[in-house]
Amino acid sequence: MIKVVFFDLDDTIADTTRLAEMARKNAIENMIRHGMPVDFDTAYSELLELIREYGSNFPRHFDYLLRRLDLKYNPKWVAAGVIAYHNTKFAYLREVRHARKTLLKLREMGLRLGIITDGDPIKQWEKILRLDLDDFFEHVVVSDFEGVKKPHPKIFQKALRIFGVKAEESVMVGDRLYSDIYGAKSVGMHTVWFRYGKYANRENEYKEYADYEITDLLDVPKIIEVLNSGKDDSNKKVHADR
Amino acid sequence: MIKVVFFDLDDTIADTTRLAEMARKNAIENMIRHGMPVDFDTAYSELLELIREYGSNFPRHFDYLLRRLDLKYNPKWVAAGVIAYHNTKFAYLREVRHARKTLLKLREMGLRLGIITDGDPIKQWEKILRLDLDDFFEHVVVSDFEGVKKPHPKIFQKALRIFGVKAEESVMVGDRLYSDIYGAKSVGMHTVWFRYGKYANRENEYKEYADYEITDLLDVPKIIEVLNSGKDDSNKKVHADR
Repeated sequence: MIKVVFFDLDDTIADTTRLAEMARKNAIENMIRHGMPVDFDTAYSELLELIREYGSNFPRHFDYLLRRLDLKYNPKWVAAGVIAYHNTKFAYLREVRHARKTLLKLREMGLRLGIITDGDPIKQWEKILRLDLDDFFEHVVVSDFEGVKKPHPKIFQKALRIFGVKAEESVMVGDRLYSDIYGAKSVGMHTVWFRYGKYANRENEYKEYADYEITDLLDVPKIIEVLNSGKDDSNKKVHADR
Repeated sequence: MIKVVFFDLDDTIADTTRLAEMARKNAIENMIRHGMPVDFDTAYSELLELIREYGSNFPRHFDYLLRRLDLKYNPKWVAAGVIAYHNTKFAYLREVRHARKTLLKLREMGLRLGIITDGDPIKQWEKILRLDLDDFFEHVVVSDFEGVKKPHPKIFQKALRIFGVKAEESVMVGDRLYSDIYGAKSVGMHTVWFRYGKYANRENEYKEYADYEITDLLDVPKIIEVLNSGKDDSNKKVHADR
């Protein structure tokens, strides 16, 4: 009997990859508009390289971008980048298609909901609150707070302990085969791989850990229904092309 | 002959004190709305005390607020504070009354304009860009970039050097008698004290360094006209009560 459904946050509930791309492009455009003497493609590809090297949570992307482009430090250009980046992030943060509808359906079915996510706790909560999704979730478990990252079992076990349920009474839904699906499966959860965004064709070596594969979140309630009806042994994979 | 007019930024061009107060109050309200178990007055006065002790640019106000209130760390409440704070700052940033009109008038009179400000260079530029005021100013000189704060003469001398004018060819307009007026006067600039905001009745021991005292920025072009007509020796103080 499934009692709890856990969701990953980024690119499962909050549409963050597309947002980050828009925000970065707008930042570069605004820096150029305010006089930064570089063409868009050069600056944008340098920024992407920088993010690959320093990570997306590095707080000084635009400072470092100027250094990498051999430009003199200019707080006006950095401010122009910061403004456009934040404006975009605040104005265009969206739920993944059907996320709210899915959460509502699951709650109507009597299920308890949680989030298991990596990342900075405050930034993750910002997304949840800005999307007005906090009322749906009983607990939000952020791995950074525990000193580990998914797929470390500690974070999944902690989530189970908080909800007071057994692994087999829970389902994990996420877009990452490695961190979400492999991680959840190694503690014994049911797993639903949401094939979406930039990881839709990556980490395929962990595909065996996905009990289900979906491309629409509205399939989650259907899967729960199947699991709770006891008829889940025959045709496990729900296919992407529906 | 006056050629350049320098302005302070905070509470002279950008109406920042009022904004910060609104932003802080909205932050506390949103933290309480999301479950922080404290009454508004207790939380707000604790926040003000924290800001007095750690400074307004301290990046972890809301974290520390929870500690001071003996509450368990809760990233949701911190996020709620951060969101409300940022939303307010972005939505309600305003120029000081008549600032843009004054800048426009001065430019029409053929004057060159600059900003001399303390604070983080990126944050100061953010305000200028968000107010769409950057086209008015030939240079923005931020003291933090020079390793000093107003009234240190280095920052005023640097501004004069950048513009290539003598001190007596320039006017400094600012709301702080100590940092703006005393500072500018000690390098030989003409000084206009803009009596506004929380410093309207403070630092009176430096009042002697103010050549003029105004409560409306539109008096600045009038003062320049007087100075450039050579009739500025008789009745120096323009009074607040017009």
